Amino acid sequence: MDQSPTSTHAARGSEAALFEQACMTAREAAVLASVEAALGWDERTLMPPKAASYRGEQAAALAGLVHAKRTDPALGELLATLAASHLASQGTPEIRAAIRLMAQDYEKQARLPARLVTELAKTCVDAQQAWMVARAESSWPTLAPWLEKVFALKREQASCQRPDLDPYDSLLDDYEPGGRWPAVAERFERLRTALVPLVRGCVESSSRPSDSVMRRHYPIRDQERFVRAVAERIGFDFQRGRLDTTDHPFCSTLGPDDCRITTRWDESYLPTALFGVLHEAGHGLYEQGLPREWFGLPPGEAASLAIHESQSRLWENFVGRSPEFWEWCHPLAREFFPEALAGTTAADVQAALLVVEPSFIRVEADEVTYNLHVMMRFDLERAIVHGDLAVADLPAAWNERFGKDFGRRPPTDAEGVLQDIHWSAGLIGYFPTYTLGNMFAAQLMQAAERAIPGLDRQMAAGEFGDLLGWLRRTVHATGRTQESGPLVEQVTGEPASERWLVESLFRRYGTAYGLT
Amino acid sequence: MDQSPTSTHAARGSEAALFEQACMTAREAAVLASVEAALGWDERTLMPPKAASYRGEQAAALAGLVHAKRTDPALGELLATLAASHLASQGTPEIRAAIRLMAQDYEKQARLPARLVTELAKTCVDAQQAWMVARAESSWPTLAPWLEKVFALKREQASCQRPDLDPYDSLLDDYEPGGRWPAVAERFERLRTALVPLVRGCVESSSRPSDSVMRRHYPIRDQERFVRAVAERIGFDFQRGRLDTTDHPFCSTLGPDDCRITTRWDESYLPTALFGVLHEAGHGLYEQGLPREWFGLPPGEAASLAIHESQSRLWENFVGRSPEFWEWCHPLAREFFPEALAGTTAADVQAALLVVEPSFIRVEADEVTYNLHVMMRFDLERAIVHGDLAVADLPAAWNERFGKDFGRRPPTDAEGVLQDIHWSAGLIGYFPTYTLGNMFAAQLMQAAERAIPGLDRQMAAGEFGDLLGWLRRTVHATGRTQESGPLVEQVTGEPASERWLVESLFRRYGTAYGLT
Repeated sequence: MDQSPTSTHAARGSEAALFEQACMTAREAAVLASVEAALGWDERTLMPPKAASYRGEQAAALAGLVHAKRTDPALGELLATLAASHLASQGTPEIRAAIRLMAQDYEKQARLPARLVTELAKTCVDAQQAWMVARAESSWPTLAPWLEKVFALKREQASCQRPDLDPYDSLLDDYEPGGRWPAVAERFERLRTALVPLVRGCVESSSRPSDSVMRRHYPIRDQERFVRAVAERIGFDFQRGRLDTTDHPFCSTLGPDDCRITTRWDESYLPTALFGVLHEAGHGLYEQGLPREWFGLPPGEAASLAIHESQSRLWENFVGRSPEFWEWCHPLAREFFPEALAGTTAADVQAALLVVEPSFIRVEADEVTYNLHVMMRFDLERAIVHGDLAVADLPAAWNERFGKDFGRRPPTDAEGVLQDIHWSAGLIGYFPTYTLGNMFAAQLMQAAERAIPGLDRQMAAGEFGDLLGWLRRTVHATGRTQESGPLVEQVTGEPASERWLVESLFRRYGTAYGLT
Repeated sequence: MDQSPTSTHAARGSEAALFEQACMTAREAAVLASVEAALGWDERTLMPPKAASYRGEQAAALAGLVHAKRTDPALGELLATLAASHLASQGTPEIRAAIRLMAQDYEKQARLPARLVTELAKTCVDAQQAWMVARAESSWPTLAPWLEKVFALKREQASCQRPDLDPYDSLLDDYEPGGRWPAVAERFERLRTALVPLVRGCVESSSRPSDSVMRRHYPIRDQERFVRAVAERIGFDFQRGRLDTTDHPFCSTLGPDDCRITTRWDESYLPTALFGVLHEAGHGLYEQGLPREWFGLPPGEAASLAIHESQSRLWENFVGRSPEFWEWCHPLAREFFPEALAGTTAADVQAALLVVEPSFIRVEADEVTYNLHVMMRFDLERAIVHGDLAVADLPAAWNERFGKDFGRRPPTDAEGVLQDIHWSAGLIGYFPTYTLGNMFAAQLMQAAERAIPGLDRQMAAGEFGDLLGWLRRTVHATGRTQESGPLVEQVTGEPASERWLVESLFRRYGTAYGLT
């Protein structure tokens, strides 16, 4: 049927209205989800101990409301109409991405049976309780039946939500949209092949840096002021955020102008708080840099967990462990810790931050060995999802692989297969994003150095505005409109690869350890 | 129609099921309302400045959900059926009260046009903004049009929600269920007649106590530990609560096991934090003492604002300013503040806490003059609601009345009619609960002294368990199942009256000021 220009115009006007309507529903869901985040932040940060049980009821009520909004059939119909609309092909890049991703998200949610969603939520709560006991008692049999159940449910989720994908990719896609395991595995294998000898070289080197300068007395009150000053200096906006204390540091967004980071403190080891804050503030800078006007919609969301991790690692490792950073930061640190840092130089401190010390525990690992921890978890969880490994055989597989990569085996399961909460929390397909993030961070930093002339000198002067501005423009501004691989390639001009991470680790740690 | 015993039994069984269903809906509303409270606590305590605007959206979304639950027509039908049921007349006292009060609450809410609810909410937000400017600039014309609007809307609310009541009583009933202004006014008049000469006597006395001992250097960090120790000692459960810092102290309940109090600190005046915490912890002890299994339902709610205030004032004034309390507390305080309290006695400190110093500002008032501030607000707001005073004439009426009670007039409106947020926030009928609370506190304390032999000696030994236990059994345990007047009469054996407050103030302050 012919359409006059006017009626086309009207049709497009009504398309815009439909789009606005879909966005409104998504924004309503986002408001409730942000309230859930606020409750979660409170729970992890300062909730009184006995309040936990009722907090569970509050969280469940919110989760139910959010889920109902997100799977509202009226929204599904709207999105189906929009998918076939002129806007979906001819709108701005943000609008096109919003329509496409909202429809994808909706379909994924709608394909999950409500029974499965509830059972997964409940099972993961129970499994995490079991995990706490299992880890405390180093008792694999306590956790094993729960992990069986979690993996079974997650396999079911995988086949429901994305029947078109390999089951591991279906899960990976929740955290890393567009991520596919064969490509990840290939890059990881090259990374592992490079890292194992680097670790061995560091461990066996006769010229090892010492971190004794970091193991002096650093009063907590002074640390609080110091790390806050550093976070502000790299650009974290305390008008739109907070820094608090928790045992397990995290970054959480409670609203477009409310990003909260946490850290822990060690009076006799400064890096715990400093690098905790650089890491979480890196996450926070990303959240604070996402397009505010799109909050709660795909163009205002993070691209992926790996991109998120790339932002935290960039500030933590590629800025925070660099000689340039310490040229600026050492005099500042001496103002806060005149006694601990008396008679030290910037180079002393920077060298102390490059200690490689294999650990059984992932969260205590240094920058080099960390990725070995992650890659083995990626291989093990994938083998289970693919049916190539039984949950019952996990401890043996863990220990064997750890032995291969690190040359020794964990003395207990608490220091081995029981150490992470992820699997009992249903976070399967999550681990690889940590190492992908490290790779992306190295590749982005290398591109930033090319893009910003004099970045070294700026950092040495404590000026981070150009670096942050570049990240804002290239990475933050695009939200979730691009998948991580294409995004990294677009920003850096080269396909995403492990080679910049390998190159950076070899250059920095090779020098520190006198390796050839 | 005849009913066999079995079918009667079945009918009662189904009544119980209906009751459970109504309770479930009310509990669901309570869960969401408690989430609203959690957001409110966060907003007032530690939210980043720029997060305010989105927090408004979060709060509005929650408020909408709570309101929808509370006015769900299905709930109305359930409650109507229950009101005519056997349970409503023959159930336990808690069940009978729950049915009666839930029905009352529902009808009250349902009688309010949605348009009025929205307009009131929006107007009060704007009026409070105007109030902040008006107070800062001491500009009555900035606030006047907003107060006109608020009072007009509140009059409309009064006639909608309880068309059977005098309009002021309809508003008072929101805060003090069953409260009726003529009875309140009568008691207030007797109280005022007694207090005006007491204040004059104190002010003109040649033997005035000094509070210089409280105006020394009290380091905040030590205050923090000290007031926490005191709050714990009187029974505040930090496993089910917290203490934080705000400019305007408050007590807020985020769940049945999550009661949070706040205070402010003054390094050169110890009573700011100490009596702030005794006051808020008094509110907190009440909240922590309400029947947990009835949380979110009338038997688990506070009886009224005046009963709430009676609990805070009892601990603040009747315990915290007593010689017995300081017999125990002075040695403790000296451990925390050895320098400030060097060479002092318990009697020195206790005397310093009985200073009477008329102030233009209510929240800075001492225990004796405070009630004069409250009673004039009660008379003025009532005159406006009754149409006996125009909003435009409020400043003149304020100043005239203040002059009568205090013998001088506020130099500016900021120190007069503009000082309180209440009216711009729509809190009309709220003020009298402060002084009713003081009266109830005096009457309850006097009954506690009769009921607990050796209470004096217990307090002097820092033992408050019997007093708290008595309050728990007599006041806290009944929740909202009784109105404040009958509750106080039942607990104390005498009708609620101002006489114990008058007697206590004359005894304590008369002695301190050497009055006959």
